[in-house]
Amino acid sequence: MPILDSLYDALEQGSQSEIEKLLTELHPSEIADILESLPQKQREDLWQQVEQDKVLPYLNDAVRVELMQDMPAAQVATAAEGMETDDAVDLLQDLSDEMVEEVLTKMERQHYQRLRQVLFYPEDSAGGLMNTDFLVVRVDMTLVMVLRYLRHFDELPEKTDVLMVVDSKNHYCGVLSITDLLTHSPKLTVKEVMSTDIEAIPADMSAHEVALLFEQRDFLSAPVVDKDGVLVGRITIDDVVDVIRAEADHNLMGAAGLDEEDDMFAPILQTTRDRALWLGINLGTAFLASYVIGLFESTLEQVVALAVLMPIVASMGGIAGSQTLTIVIRGMALEQITDNNTPFLLRKELAVSLLNGFIWAVVVALIAILWFGSLKLGLIIGSALIINLFCAALAGVLIPLILRRLSIDPALAGGVILTTVTDVIGFAAFLGLATVFLVHFGA
Amino acid sequence: MPILDSLYDALEQGSQSEIEKLLTELHPSEIADILESLPQKQREDLWQQVEQDKVLPYLNDAVRVELMQDMPAAQVATAAEGMETDDAVDLLQDLSDEMVEEVLTKMERQHYQRLRQVLFYPEDSAGGLMNTDFLVVRVDMTLVMVLRYLRHFDELPEKTDVLMVVDSKNHYCGVLSITDLLTHSPKLTVKEVMSTDIEAIPADMSAHEVALLFEQRDFLSAPVVDKDGVLVGRITIDDVVDVIRAEADHNLMGAAGLDEEDDMFAPILQTTRDRALWLGINLGTAFLASYVIGLFESTLEQVVALAVLMPIVASMGGIAGSQTLTIVIRGMALEQITDNNTPFLLRKELAVSLLNGFIWAVVVALIAILWFGSLKLGLIIGSALIINLFCAALAGVLIPLILRRLSIDPALAGGVILTTVTDVIGFAAFLGLATVFLVHFGA
Repeated sequence: MPILDSLYDALEQGSQSEIEKLLTELHPSEIADILESLPQKQREDLWQQVEQDKVLPYLNDAVRVELMQDMPAAQVATAAEGMETDDAVDLLQDLSDEMVEEVLTKMERQHYQRLRQVLFYPEDSAGGLMNTDFLVVRVDMTLVMVLRYLRHFDELPEKTDVLMVVDSKNHYCGVLSITDLLTHSPKLTVKEVMSTDIEAIPADMSAHEVALLFEQRDFLSAPVVDKDGVLVGRITIDDVVDVIRAEADHNLMGAAGLDEEDDMFAPILQTTRDRALWLGINLGTAFLASYVIGLFESTLEQVVALAVLMPIVASMGGIAGSQTLTIVIRGMALEQITDNNTPFLLRKELAVSLLNGFIWAVVVALIAILWFGSLKLGLIIGSALIINLFCAALAGVLIPLILRRLSIDPALAGGVILTTVTDVIGFAAFLGLATVFLVHFGA
Repeated sequence: MPILDSLYDALEQGSQSEIEKLLTELHPSEIADILESLPQKQREDLWQQVEQDKVLPYLNDAVRVELMQDMPAAQVATAAEGMETDDAVDLLQDLSDEMVEEVLTKMERQHYQRLRQVLFYPEDSAGGLMNTDFLVVRVDMTLVMVLRYLRHFDELPEKTDVLMVVDSKNHYCGVLSITDLLTHSPKLTVKEVMSTDIEAIPADMSAHEVALLFEQRDFLSAPVVDKDGVLVGRITIDDVVDVIRAEADHNLMGAAGLDEEDDMFAPILQTTRDRALWLGINLGTAFLASYVIGLFESTLEQVVALAVLMPIVASMGGIAGSQTLTIVIRGMALEQITDNNTPFLLRKELAVSLLNGFIWAVVVALIAILWFGSLKLGLIIGSALIINLFCAALAGVLIPLILRRLSIDPALAGGVILTTVTDVIGFAAFLGLATVFLVHFGA
């Protein structure tokens, strides 16, 4: 990004005219991107020089909250009024409840009501995703009437590819696509031309399910209804893209104990604190593994080669288990794992783990025999590897299923629990077998 | 999914009429989903009973290739003709080159040419993503002429929210949104009404960059031009959603050495083979760690407590390093990491790792002292932890940057290399310090 480089230079040199010139060449979304890639000090400096209202909707939550701290409520209100409903709601949801109230009172009545309706629904539901600025026509209108109605507008709401069709009680009936409006005889009624293919989405459907539905059906937009079937809003695909991206980030970052909205350039102390908890949890599980090893101290004293080889068994179990875990978590996210196919999946994963267990047990055993010149040691590590890979597959399938039943997010907790299991079983199986066959029955 | 359960039962009982009844209630995308969640045998059975042409575009690549194996070329050709260009191309790209040629010769000329144009571009470029079925109007037409032209169609192409505007040499000029067509005076020319906000995307732009652009700008569709500025196609957001999902899956699955198109119910032998390579690579790195431990065999013989505690240092390094690695890989994917902010990011990560290193070093040292009653052992493990966390942060930032420069995908290789580094340094630092301060200078 050459512009980013020039902007950096301009910020460092404080050359005001150069910064202003560069900013005019950029789209607000690019400016948001640049703000996110700047260390805090430069970020604050640049923020004072951009059109804040325009850039706000494109910033990620963590950076936005930080930059909005010093904005007066009236300015936030003006910014929110200029945004699409869902973006404005997204913005407000980052603020404290008192601040939200203050901002809402500063708004014009019409905007206020529009936002209230969406704020009523949880952020991660269809209601929280929807927009309320869309065009509605009645099912008994003719196309001539619709065309005349549309000509009243200077501009139609953005992303209007269809008009929503309702009956006299505002119940959702179907959609009338703008293109159908153009290619059909104007004398026909809306009812005759409208499409009823697109089922309405209940406002309380989870954002995750909404995203799946859009992906499966290739929707560009879909109507949202309340529990009485009354049309309350409309979800467009760009909002769904944000959900998909957020879920993907959540899975990726969550597995490393990070929040998907983390700011790469947050202050050092804040980042240290955010990450410390995860390190602490992992330290607990590491000590659990150490405790298991400690149970076999006298065995280790007699055969030090065990200490050299033991990480191999634990590590291979962790790798194999995380493969199974990843497959299962993804399958669950796509809602492809049901009570019906779970037994089959479990059997398959166990079979795969046994096969790979045997293959790699032979390799590991041979290397151990050649390295330490002990046939018994080779047989022990090979057996321990097979046991651990089998348990890893079992854990990889069962842990996410159990976590889901406990309403704990498997993407966050699955990995830690899995490696705890594979470490403990890996060390216990290897050192346990060695205690029995090397120490008790002599080498 | 109650329907899925009923379908399972019907498949098991082989009750034909029940299966047919259930299938009519389902959207092709839902049938595709169900096929993906079925074990192989049931999948084959069900496949014979669905409208294959309709279901094909919704299947994931691995399952589609499997099910298409026995389809005759003529049937594949018919299926491809009925799809949007990009879906048809996606389908063909899974087949062998000879099969593609055979299918293309079986197609009608118009479809053939349409596909050829897109097949010309790499699958992961803007050209490979685009559709070629869109409506074009000339810049000098009046809106009356455009409206008359549109009335010739029984139906406009799906997802037509805008018409593409070109000059007499087919160069892209702008877009005319259908809604603008309705709200402006029919006497105006296209040139007066069209929007030139949306820049055309070069056909050779990578799919990744296309997705970023769509996300940043909230595009619903964008024109694609060749290097002379001639309009060659149009990308719609639903194709971009697929790219975003595929990239997310790639990052998530790639980190576990899995292919994002993996079929959950692939045959056991195939899955075993697919996963064996990754286990083998990790076995190599595990033996490297063992080799390092082996260098300190005599130290371990003298102080067996070291064997008990050593996994803690390695494991904490791995966790801290993967946090940094994840942040950097995500930042790189969003193109927010540049030469300018890398030094700042590196300094920040190192500072965070030192702070967290000190905090957890104190905790670990205290536990070690209480457990084994040795102050020296506590000091040694604490120091080793700080060293390893520092190196983990360094590796977490540098490994992805180096891999990118070598054109190796950090999402695939980053994790393995990182844990190799943190294992080796963790064991070497802890056992090395112990050798010097516990063994040589006596306990």
